[in-house]
Amino acid sequence: MQVISSKDNEIVKNIKKLKEKKYRDLENAYIIEGIKLVKEAIYENAKIRQIIMCENYADNKEIDKETLYEISKYNLIYVTEKVFNTITDVKTPQGIIAIVEKNNSTCEINYSEEIIIALDDVQDPGNLGTIIRTADSANLKQIILSKNSADPYNPKVVRSTMGGIFRVNIIEVDNLEETLKQTQKNGFKVMVTVLDTQKSIFDANYNKKVIVIGNEANGISKSIQNIADEKVKIPMLGKTESLNASVAAGVMIYEYVRKKAKSI
Amino acid sequence: MQVISSKDNEIVKNIKKLKEKKYRDLENAYIIEGIKLVKEAIYENAKIRQIIMCENYADNKEIDKETLYEISKYNLIYVTEKVFNTITDVKTPQGIIAIVEKNNSTCEINYSEEIIIALDDVQDPGNLGTIIRTADSANLKQIILSKNSADPYNPKVVRSTMGGIFRVNIIEVDNLEETLKQTQKNGFKVMVTVLDTQKSIFDANYNKKVIVIGNEANGISKSIQNIADEKVKIPMLGKTESLNASVAAGVMIYEYVRKKAKSI
Repeated sequence: MQVISSKDNEIVKNIKKLKEKKYRDLENAYIIEGIKLVKEAIYENAKIRQIIMCENYADNKEIDKETLYEISKYNLIYVTEKVFNTITDVKTPQGIIAIVEKNNSTCEINYSEEIIIALDDVQDPGNLGTIIRTADSANLKQIILSKNSADPYNPKVVRSTMGGIFRVNIIEVDNLEETLKQTQKNGFKVMVTVLDTQKSIFDANYNKKVIVIGNEANGISKSIQNIADEKVKIPMLGKTESLNASVAAGVMIYEYVRKKAKSI
Repeated sequence: MQVISSKDNEIVKNIKKLKEKKYRDLENAYIIEGIKLVKEAIYENAKIRQIIMCENYADNKEIDKETLYEISKYNLIYVTEKVFNTITDVKTPQGIIAIVEKNNSTCEINYSEEIIIALDDVQDPGNLGTIIRTADSANLKQIILSKNSADPYNPKVVRSTMGGIFRVNIIEVDNLEETLKQTQKNGFKVMVTVLDTQKSIFDANYNKKVIVIGNEANGISKSIQNIADEKVKIPMLGKTESLNASVAAGVMIYEYVRKKAKSI
């Protein structure tokens, strides 16, 4: 077993570059960390380019032999703990990281789904990851992402998706307004949440709708409000103006889940 | 106008101590940051002990004279930008911080509310703050917090509450199980989310219920599951096992909001 012990090793340097969006875009790949995500990536047939393990990782009693065998089928490299600590993105690293190819093989929207989530510049990585996780929980297969949103392949986003990143197709678009118009031409109605409407999200129907979630500070941009077919609001009973973006998305996605369950 | 220019000044050192839970507990006070939170604290009559401004803060064109006048009524100190940067908790500081007394004047549970949220070791500060924000949005006035939860007066929690920290009574309890038994004696039923039940949160009623939200990694502890009156689940339609804790809380709180609106 060859173990890389220098942090200046070319392979190690190339892995670390993937912490930056620029290089993730260039390489069309990203880093995942921790055994849970690595197992999910294997299970979901994600394209794993490389697995990096701490030299003593296989001694970890919590890892079963079967998983180690599965891992051994991939392009595997070992590094010293010291080198691993220069790569890891977390405080208490588990000793395993993988480089995975982005799953953006298609930029085509699938119009057979009942609802589509579109994010208008959601910028907090935790929010973006959590929204992907929630969409995955509701078995939604795609999310449309505006250009100025957080990078879905940022390590914090990936972590927050809890594996959703391997299952939800993230469609990054240059011009969200144009993309939404295209969904309208394909029979979808665009639904936005605003403050100045009487119509509650609970009175809306969720059949062939694009649900737009806005930016954390500014909400949904004016140009997108202008093309919306339906304006709804999440009832605010107290003094706050709005919910956190990922909670707002969760409440709306689960209102769809509730209505769907009722109609079966 | 006297401006503190040394980071070793005793006042400055005492403020910085409040970044640690130990000192927040000792002083029964915490730090809030940014003009929006300071204005909310004033508006909500929070007990403001001190306001700390960057020396050039009043030159900020975005601050209106009326707000500056309101601020001037408090115990005010000015510091240089360099000193301010040693206190701030954010990347792009706005130049204003206040020290506020904790609003835990009462540890008594108010049994006149229809639902009560109880958190069983929610440990992520972002999740805790977001749950307080969501409770505030639904006009819930209290949250019961188990001993091993994140500190609600941690700066990241405070920031995520968007002012909810001034309006929601946070009841920190040493033994959540005992407290829940006490709510049962007072006519409440304890509702927990688990994986192994058929009953959906959408089929439950939300009248005199304590809704328990579990720890991010381990869910709701066994001892609390054992005393629960009602076990429900949030439908998981995809491959994920669970929602993010703050999204789960949001979905349940807003199911209560929906049912309440329908019953009026």
